[in-house]
Amino acid sequence: MKQFITLLFLLIILSCTNSSSEKKAILKLMNQQEQDWNNGKIDSFMAGYWKSDSLMFVGKNGIKYGWETTLKNYKTSYPDKAAMGKLEFTIIKLEVTGDTAFMLGKWNLIREKGNPHGHFSLYWKKIKGNWVITIDHTS
Amino acid sequence: MKQFITLLFLLIILSCTNSSSEKKAILKLMNQQEQDWNNGKIDSFMAGYWKSDSLMFVGKNGIKYGWETTLKNYKTSYPDKAAMGKLEFTIIKLEVTGDTAFMLGKWNLIREKGNPHGHFSLYWKKIKGNWVITIDHTS
Repeated sequence: MKQFITLLFLLIILSCTNSSSEKKAILKLMNQQEQDWNNGKIDSFMAGYWKSDSLMFVGKNGIKYGWETTLKNYKTSYPDKAAMGKLEFTIIKLEVTGDTAFMLGKWNLIREKGNPHGHFSLYWKKIKGNWVITIDHTS
Repeated sequence: MKQFITLLFLLIILSCTNSSSEKKAILKLMNQQEQDWNNGKIDSFMAGYWKSDSLMFVGKNGIKYGWETTLKNYKTSYPDKAAMGKLEFTIIKLEVTGDTAFMLGKWNLIREKGNPHGHFSLYWKKIKGNWVITIDHTS
């Protein structure tokens, strides 16, 4: 019985440590996305997204499917560094459960012509050992 | 070894069955919300939400916290049955992981004066045995 309780405690501690390291990995990816965006590298920025036709991006034009479509739409909406501006993320909530994670955050673009801003809900999955955004709902 | 494999299979089957019954429970709640809304019962509709000051509602006015605030805002925006119209949900994605679930869907209001529509991301949690929406991002 003693051994069982010890094992249980170890498992709980391990699961907490894991959750914390998973959160760190996701936050690092968000930080990398900010940097890539601010260096005008949309292709690198896209590394945070699931490279799949099933990726979903929900924006002001409804749902768009697929990594390639998302990349194309970003490039159309933000054709140059002036349009891209300086991106800032503020993470409001991040919860990891198993191989999935939910994130709620704020985005802010600092540009010469107006500063658009809004919120995003991201549904992350750990696929083949890497965390990727599988659904992005941005408003 | 054989016993271990049998146990493992049983656990996998049990976890799949659970996930399916959890999904059913959540879909039933969404269906109940539609019915309550369409009967003009905003208070009953609110039963789908976490009754907590930590509930988050992200709408066009940014983040609002709390169950009471959310109820008040719904009542202000939809003061009568004509304003409430007929609500229709379309569930696009629902995934349950442990005691959390992520849902992406479409909402549509059929009203005499225009038919507003959009998408929602809901982050559900099973709290004290009941599924509740803890974060609602609607656009």
